Amino acid sequence: MRINRTRLKRERIAILTGGGDCPGINAVIRAVAKKAIIEKDMEVIGIEDGYHGVINNQYRILHYEDVSGILTLGGTILGTSKTANPYRYPLKKRGKLEFQDRSKIAIQNINKHDVSCLVCIGGDGTLSIAHRLFEDGVPIIGLPKTIDNDLRGTDITFGFDSAVSIATEGIDRIHTTAQSHHRVMIVEVMGHRAGWVALYSGVAAGGDIILIPEIPYDINVITEKVNERNKKGKRFSIVVVAEGAKPKGGDMVIQRIVKESSDPIRLGGIGFVLGEQIEKITGLETRTVVMGHLLRGGSPTSFDRILATRLGTKAVDMIGNKEFGYMVGMKKNSLVAVLLKEVARGPKTVPLNHPVIKAARSVGTCFGDD
Amino acid sequence: MRINRTRLKRERIAILTGGGDCPGINAVIRAVAKKAIIEKDMEVIGIEDGYHGVINNQYRILHYEDVSGILTLGGTILGTSKTANPYRYPLKKRGKLEFQDRSKIAIQNINKHDVSCLVCIGGDGTLSIAHRLFEDGVPIIGLPKTIDNDLRGTDITFGFDSAVSIATEGIDRIHTTAQSHHRVMIVEVMGHRAGWVALYSGVAAGGDIILIPEIPYDINVITEKVNERNKKGKRFSIVVVAEGAKPKGGDMVIQRIVKESSDPIRLGGIGFVLGEQIEKITGLETRTVVMGHLLRGGSPTSFDRILATRLGTKAVDMIGNKEFGYMVGMKKNSLVAVLLKEVARGPKTVPLNHPVIKAARSVGTCFGDD
Amino acid sequence: MRINRTRLKRERIAILTGGGDCPGINAVIRAVAKKAIIEKDMEVIGIEDGYHGVINNQYRILHYEDVSGILTLGGTILGTSKTANPYRYPLKKRGKLEFQDRSKIAIQNINKHDVSCLVCIGGDGTLSIAHRLFEDGVPIIGLPKTIDNDLRGTDITFGFDSAVSIATEGIDRIHTTAQSHHRVMIVEVMGHRAGWVALYSGVAAGGDIILIPEIPYDINVITEKVNERNKKGKRFSIVVVAEGAKPKGGDMVIQRIVKESSDPIRLGGIGFVLGEQIEKITGLETRTVVMGHLLRGGSPTSFDRILATRLGTKAVDMIGNKEFGYMVGMKKNSLVAVLLKEVARGPKTVPLNHPVIKAARSVGTCFGDD
Amino acid sequence: MRINRTRLKRERIAILTGGGDCPGINAVIRAVAKKAIIEKDMEVIGIEDGYHGVINNQYRILHYEDVSGILTLGGTILGTSKTANPYRYPLKKRGKLEFQDRSKIAIQNINKHDVSCLVCIGGDGTLSIAHRLFEDGVPIIGLPKTIDNDLRGTDITFGFDSAVSIATEGIDRIHTTAQSHHRVMIVEVMGHRAGWVALYSGVAAGGDIILIPEIPYDINVITEKVNERNKKGKRFSIVVVAEGAKPKGGDMVIQRIVKESSDPIRLGGIGFVLGEQIEKITGLETRTVVMGHLLRGGSPTSFDRILATRLGTKAVDMIGNKEFGYMVGMKKNSLVAVLLKEVARGPKTVPLNHPVIKAARSVGTCFGDD
Repeated sequence: MRINRTRLKRERIAILTGGGDCPGINAVIRAVAKKAIIEKDMEVIGIEDGYHGVINNQYRILHYEDVSGILTLGGTILGTSKTANPYRYPLKKRGKLEFQDRSKIAIQNINKHDVSCLVCIGGDGTLSIAHRLFEDGVPIIGLPKTIDNDLRGTDITFGFDSAVSIATEGIDRIHTTAQSHHRVMIVEVMGHRAGWVALYSGVAAGGDIILIPEIPYDINVITEKVNERNKKGKRFSIVVVAEGAKPKGGDMVIQRIVKESSDPIRLGGIGFVLGEQIEKITGLETRTVVMGHLLRGGSPTSFDRILATRLGTKAVDMIGNKEFGYMVGMKKNSLVAVLLKEVARGPKTVPLNHPVIKAARSVGTCFGDD
Repeated sequence: MRINRTRLKRERIAILTGGGDCPGINAVIRAVAKKAIIEKDMEVIGIEDGYHGVINNQYRILHYEDVSGILTLGGTILGTSKTANPYRYPLKKRGKLEFQDRSKIAIQNINKHDVSCLVCIGGDGTLSIAHRLFEDGVPIIGLPKTIDNDLRGTDITFGFDSAVSIATEGIDRIHTTAQSHHRVMIVEVMGHRAGWVALYSGVAAGGDIILIPEIPYDINVITEKVNERNKKGKRFSIVVVAEGAKPKGGDMVIQRIVKESSDPIRLGGIGFVLGEQIEKITGLETRTVVMGHLLRGGSPTSFDRILATRLGTKAVDMIGNKEFGYMVGMKKNSLVAVLLKEVARGPKTVPLNHPVIKAARSVGTCFGDD
Repeated sequence: MRINRTRLKRERIAILTGGGDCPGINAVIRAVAKKAIIEKDMEVIGIEDGYHGVINNQYRILHYEDVSGILTLGGTILGTSKTANPYRYPLKKRGKLEFQDRSKIAIQNINKHDVSCLVCIGGDGTLSIAHRLFEDGVPIIGLPKTIDNDLRGTDITFGFDSAVSIATEGIDRIHTTAQSHHRVMIVEVMGHRAGWVALYSGVAAGGDIILIPEIPYDINVITEKVNERNKKGKRFSIVVVAEGAKPKGGDMVIQRIVKESSDPIRLGGIGFVLGEQIEKITGLETRTVVMGHLLRGGSPTSFDRILATRLGTKAVDMIGNKEFGYMVGMKKNSLVAVLLKEVARGPKTVPLNHPVIKAARSVGTCFGDD
Repeated sequence: MRINRTRLKRERIAILTGGGDCPGINAVIRAVAKKAIIEKDMEVIGIEDGYHGVINNQYRILHYEDVSGILTLGGTILGTSKTANPYRYPLKKRGKLEFQDRSKIAIQNINKHDVSCLVCIGGDGTLSIAHRLFEDGVPIIGLPKTIDNDLRGTDITFGFDSAVSIATEGIDRIHTTAQSHHRVMIVEVMGHRAGWVALYSGVAAGGDIILIPEIPYDINVITEKVNERNKKGKRFSIVVVAEGAKPKGGDMVIQRIVKESSDPIRLGGIGFVLGEQIEKITGLETRTVVMGHLLRGGSPTSFDRILATRLGTKAVDMIGNKEFGYMVGMKKNSLVAVLLKEVARGPKTVPLNHPVIKAARSVGTCFGDD
């Protein structure tokens, strides 16, 4: 469907949301759309299911009413998808997965809408694609959505504070069980490449040991810490571990442990591997909890709602200034424009001298490395 | 240590907490101890780590101050243990696990304290042992603690409402992810033998499919339901499954599925088995979340705090009346005394015609059986 | 507007929600509508803004989609009103308020819809009107909605558990301030005629003093309790008070205190009156918090969602059986049909020998009367 | 009591907490004490009840165990007071309040403890006194505690994020009532001099109108906004108001309104004044909720726990460097040392061009001024 624009005067923009679910997406859609409609008298269209909707031309007009009352809602009213890269679009042919370049169709569809900007709300997958589309001529502004906080060019992404809050609340709960049962409780949280969520929730909840991908751990350092606590009468310990955390030696060490395990079926991830090892070495009972997708859903925190509102409204200012090819970021508490090219360079991991790591170490937190 | 009782006049009672951590234990300890101290001028001793403390004679006096301010705390201030049956006490001898009958030592230790009653706070494991101790001459009153709600002789146990609340909140969160991604989300909650938590949280959170151990499921019924929803435009579904849920055919069917799985390592439980099957049959993306120990910890709900207070104070009345060998229960909103013998008969499962099942079916919830 | 029914075969029912906002209303609308549509193939219309909508013939059809996804939402999707008694409808004439009997119009409008039942979701105001409409020939079933739990004929109303939960969480928070500042904190909660919310939240949060309308208090008993705690080293106290609580001597005593107060403007309610008196008598700092409408909003607890689902589906069974003139209630955990006549008899207050009062007294809670 | 220091080698520091209760105080006490004990082998003493404890020499040693497990607790384990300025210490003499300079006694008491630093955790009252003590020779470091966020020299204070979170959650709840009843709901939050909490919670919860002390409002602008929403079919509005907000014309205007009110007793604050005016002018029903002390208590958010940990550990570094006379602050996400002199200059109010105000205006939020 092509909307007849001949009689329309209003500038038009499009919004899409890609990648994993994340608290605050609707808050940012609302901010972009409300400001565009109220201040700029623009027309806003919402593309459905991320880049899928671009390729398949699925969209709807977002009226003021459509974005009113969505500030507090989890998820995204536009739908999302994780596997819809127009440059490498997955197709099943005779049961086999193939990849096609559909970027030309995508760009054609965007052009048909005659939009002055495509606002892409997403993490580094979505924004890397956005960068390529921008290089191929599409006017684009990105907005930094990820619970993982692993985007370059911004100190913080919306969704991160919410994910940390939920993880912290979960670890708080686990604390009482650890204490009552004198157990070592392992809590695994999301974070494949970067340990932001584990670090922040671990510090916030007072985890005794925090393991992140950036700091390969030594299992003996961990069990020593546990034993040392035990001797002091602290008969429980809390280990907060990012799903991407690795022992010194890396994946091969994990694979060997899994192989040697008496109960391979339970070894669903690093949390279980650790639990089995700690139990074997210390003789203490362990339990593993994997928080997984619990961190992604639900209403955003007040922090994320405000952040999303600020980022979203800034994007509209940038549209007005025709500043395309940028992601809106937050640096040192100020809104900044970051080149999408910079964002596409890869994930932002936790620097080893990060002040939160330093603060945590100085109150006795163990990172498995010393 | 033996406390010299010759000069003491005050009646004395002991409290222990056994089995898994559960919101409300401290509320019930407080209720028993406060009433015993304030109304009856009793002395209260707290035995540590469940039956372990009985066998090893670990205890402390609980003063009024010790039980003041604990109403809202998760866990148990007395500690607990799951593997300390005095009639079958586990011992490691030369690396091998052996079991000994230490009940005589246990009973001697209790007698030394010269208590008029031992209040046992626990689930069916703890209370079955309590029953044997009672038969062996120990004056005992039990209190129904379990998040699973699977105790005979009572409509409800404290901890259950809290666990259902936490599970419901988790499923609420998962909902937004399911909707945004058009996925089938599977949430596995505790419940080996009985499906109370899955049933109640599933109904409370509007789960589309609820699977409990009491109702063996047919995977095709489940996938039909998912597909039917899809056709109506509801491109997501929520499956709430008790960890003990089973397909028609039982464990053997599960083992076969696990064997044939391409990814056996991930198959940590029934939630993952279901996820793999549903994805294979429907072609829809699935994700599994296992709430596990998140349901056990943290501050109890107001409902559980009131229930715990009522149960605990009733126990002290029964001590006054020398009504031993009973568990305090709640039937049709009234406090009742239930023979421990009755409680020890085994778990209380969900009856197939339970009114909550009936209500759920009539609003369209699928139980995998029709 | 009159819907042409000549070609319609489907039975039709109507739903309205009246009186104050209450968590769980949407859950019960959903339960009635889903079961009516799925099981009975009925058509459901939703009347807007309570009896206002009846008189002004405002309504809309509730399709399955309209009631899907509303289980967790606070408020009511149908709107409500508190001042729309058809038998005494308020009208402003030349700036003056007058009341008219518009019941005939109301009944005509209902009849036009050709509904086999009008389901009235409300508290005693709404249900007393429902009773009169039933006596005037309208087929009616009532559903017990009130955070106050003060409806006759049912042990519990939906919304009550949610209100108690929110109040308890609030008092928990106030606790830390009381302790840190060694203050007497007074928390006023809703409850004009009945003290259910104050009693339950007070017990759940460990309030030291609980004041309810059913037990007139003596200010000296309260201050003695506060002083006694102080002597024991508990330098803070928590008073939970229902807005309708009264001193012995009643309103006249309050009015005298307000008159003599140095700061009449602050005396917004019983909580402030108590604060001023306690401060004057004990010399301790006091602060008053009025929870007010915070108790009414937001997502219902899991308990209330299940209760609402059970009550709502039962109503549809009763429609099938043509059992009109009843409210669905819950007695001793079983669903029952209660004559609306019985409900209209007036509020259900807390009996003085209620087991929760008894339990609270036995752990040391003061009710201001002894 | 004077501790004999002749044989002691360990450096000693003291901590006190002053002013209003605030989430995160215990987190900061823990951070200071843990780092001082673990990294620096210092001895830590905790002074009780703020400056009261200095004057009356009430304190206790804080061992590692005392500060372990307090991270999540609301309130302050040391107690606090708001009226204990050593330079103007309030005393009751024959029923009359007098003020005495007790600063010499205070300083003597501090000196007796032979501490190398007094860590003062407080807001601008506490830190202004700290500044005078520093000028009188006491080595002092301040830490920025206030839910109000109104301290100079720091972008953010711990407690603020928690207060905003609680306020936001409350406004979210009020939303459902506003919508269901088509009412104007007024939510009053703390903030006498600065509107930070109202601004942030108002934006986070999507308040339609936000009133802060920094922007005098025009009641007609407010009612126009309400009426305009009404015309668009939004039959409800949410007003978030700081307790210190004022109309153009200031206090005198309020006093006149209160005088003319038919119900002076209810007019406990600006929230009620607004409610009455809006109802009179628009004819719409209004309700006012005052969140008051609900914002101060309870467990801190993860954000505040991390912030408190960073601030507290930084203070210990500064003790090591003998950097006294400073408050630890956070500017542009980096820890900074701010002269107490600067902090004592008076409150930090919201600048009129603050980016959150700008963002809010651009999505349609009304500040009562235009």
